Amino acid sequence: MSIPAEAAAAIVAAGRRMDALGWVPATAGNISVRLGPDRIAITRSGRHKGMLEAGDVMAVDAAGAAIEPGARPSYETLLHCGIYRRFPGAGAVLHGHSVANTVLSRRAGDAIRLAGYELLKVFPGGPTHETAVDLPVLDNDQDIARLQAALDALWDATPEPPPGYLIRGHGVYVWGPGMDAAMARLEALEFMLLCHLEEGRPMR
Amino acid sequence: MSIPAEAAAAIVAAGRRMDALGWVPATAGNISVRLGPDRIAITRSGRHKGMLEAGDVMAVDAAGAAIEPGARPSYETLLHCGIYRRFPGAGAVLHGHSVANTVLSRRAGDAIRLAGYELLKVFPGGPTHETAVDLPVLDNDQDIARLQAALDALWDATPEPPPGYLIRGHGVYVWGPGMDAAMARLEALEFMLLCHLEEGRPMR
Amino acid sequence: MSIPAEAAAAIVAAGRRMDALGWVPATAGNISVRLGPDRIAITRSGRHKGMLEAGDVMAVDAAGAAIEPGARPSYETLLHCGIYRRFPGAGAVLHGHSVANTVLSRRAGDAIRLAGYELLKVFPGGPTHETAVDLPVLDNDQDIARLQAALDALWDATPEPPPGYLIRGHGVYVWGPGMDAAMARLEALEFMLLCHLEEGRPMR
Amino acid sequence: MSIPAEAAAAIVAAGRRMDALGWVPATAGNISVRLGPDRIAITRSGRHKGMLEAGDVMAVDAAGAAIEPGARPSYETLLHCGIYRRFPGAGAVLHGHSVANTVLSRRAGDAIRLAGYELLKVFPGGPTHETAVDLPVLDNDQDIARLQAALDALWDATPEPPPGYLIRGHGVYVWGPGMDAAMARLEALEFMLLCHLEEGRPMR
Repeated sequence: MSIPAEAAAAIVAAGRRMDALGWVPATAGNISVRLGPDRIAITRSGRHKGMLEAGDVMAVDAAGAAIEPGARPSYETLLHCGIYRRFPGAGAVLHGHSVANTVLSRRAGDAIRLAGYELLKVFPGGPTHETAVDLPVLDNDQDIARLQAALDALWDATPEPPPGYLIRGHGVYVWGPGMDAAMARLEALEFMLLCHLEEGRPMR
Repeated sequence: MSIPAEAAAAIVAAGRRMDALGWVPATAGNISVRLGPDRIAITRSGRHKGMLEAGDVMAVDAAGAAIEPGARPSYETLLHCGIYRRFPGAGAVLHGHSVANTVLSRRAGDAIRLAGYELLKVFPGGPTHETAVDLPVLDNDQDIARLQAALDALWDATPEPPPGYLIRGHGVYVWGPGMDAAMARLEALEFMLLCHLEEGRPMR
Repeated sequence: MSIPAEAAAAIVAAGRRMDALGWVPATAGNISVRLGPDRIAITRSGRHKGMLEAGDVMAVDAAGAAIEPGARPSYETLLHCGIYRRFPGAGAVLHGHSVANTVLSRRAGDAIRLAGYELLKVFPGGPTHETAVDLPVLDNDQDIARLQAALDALWDATPEPPPGYLIRGHGVYVWGPGMDAAMARLEALEFMLLCHLEEGRPMR
Repeated sequence: MSIPAEAAAAIVAAGRRMDALGWVPATAGNISVRLGPDRIAITRSGRHKGMLEAGDVMAVDAAGAAIEPGARPSYETLLHCGIYRRFPGAGAVLHGHSVANTVLSRRAGDAIRLAGYELLKVFPGGPTHETAVDLPVLDNDQDIARLQAALDALWDATPEPPPGYLIRGHGVYVWGPGMDAAMARLEALEFMLLCHLEEGRPMR
């Protein structure tokens, strides 16, 4: 299956931006776009996200299986699938490793509370600087299916989960209706985490 | 009303520069230029300031109302209008969210004192490293008209207010006779705030 | 001997990337690629690595002697030769000076333990966030042959040394089967060191 | 007098690089090249150094007077002249404001000792990581002639002064035989100051 040029271009551009911001060191990070009910465009395994080309994007089905025989999607494809399955409004997913999200997730308990920031308005549901968003932090796990099960259990127990979460020592996942919205949420989130880190606040 | 090409180009270039410096994450920030006694060119609502095009700039009157029917200006247009109304010499206004201005404004009382910096010379009125500038810090408020009223009260009580202020957890506003001067003041201010942050000095 | 265009291009591109990331200030750093059993392409002495051109790359033999009479290779060529001699799988070597690797190596004892990071997976031998990598730190020495002897002694005593080490107050050496892998390892390593630095953890 | 194209190009390129590295905020910094026994090419007053064009460079004589009637050289031209007068080998001078040099000079006494860094080798006279360089720190002074007199007194009392000094809360001056060497020394110096700042060491 060939990837629509617009979807591939959005993924390539997102990779360049994340690289310019220092959020995809080495071959870290991955990026996807929902193409339809059973199709997701996602970055292949092992590529540097700042040097993507259109051919580095491949298609998987809703269960994360490659459409093109033998193609190898990102190791964490199931986490993308888990987001698209749970949140019908999600159209794009970004995963990055920043120094701020890595250091804070290593230091945090099971959530990081973001409060008092004007930038909270970028998140859905109308938060302002007078409200707070609790960003979940999950323990890292090399068993991705088990990690996704932990996320599903968390979302089952949370009425309106925010469109993002951290994995300890690993990185952030953020999503939105399209790539622009997902990137705006990622930029807002990383900005607030950087402020948090600068403030050196205890995590609980 | 069409925007003069020079004004639109100055706003687009300012957005790119602020983005390169990390001061307009997500859709944060906004930028304007005074076009005439009752006309202001300002960024539309919700665009990423690092990816502006000329069409992302629109015109409002001195009260902040869109000239073009149905166009939606930046949410904080009234703060731009408040500056142009109070300071006849203001020709351009920049608003950005940096980590330094966010973290320091959250920590500060009602002002941050900048002293001992050669860069103070960029501000009007002849300050040098031997004088000081008190940069006002206001509490954030989602009611922009009320926030502007607080600013007017502050300016009424201040003989020669500096060409800038902070909003707590939100960002900085800076202005100048034209875009180059406004940007120079913003760069100088952000530089001094970064030094302040690095020094970790108690705010009062 | 002329350098294959692909090898020179890989070295030039690596220099630009390291400069963009702030890892080759002044004329610091050097970069090499193995061309064959007795040939290495390496940067000439004294060039800025962010402004390399193809002509700034020269050939040396396995003992570090210039092939082209009178050409002057990087002062630390013997350290590159030492890596290629010891590790048959090494195809590219990167040396850089970052603030993180400089400050941490000055503070560390004889190793820095990296643990709990997803990015450890970039290293060979299958480490995960549940294992640890001890990155050796050697004292700096202007006598490069003596420094290489210390490295050989260390590697003799270490069953499976990681593909990198630090020299105190000086910088990092990292290698991989080719330039892309070497750069991925360098980016992963610098990222983890930056996290380490941010965490301000005592070094032992 | 027209400026040789090569000299203007070197100054423009140096300004862009210093801006990319964050060392010339607002209209800060200035850059010069020695053209002959009584001629210096230097940046005009008030331009942003990251946006220089060839026309932003002008000529002054050895006493700092503009050759072209009415042209206004940088406010700190006399400090450039002072360097060229004292050091016959100086061919290019760079002045920048970094966060590191500003914060450290505010905290320091009359010198900052740099020791243990491999990058010390970029300085003349053969320093290594085993020796030390004392970088002078002078109090800021809006009277530039008086500031230069303090420098001359310091240099009279110092057998082999390093090719650079700091002005408190103001910035760094560095020079070299040509622009490349001056820039290499500036990059090395700023790198070591950044390490110093990160180490948070008391200044004396």
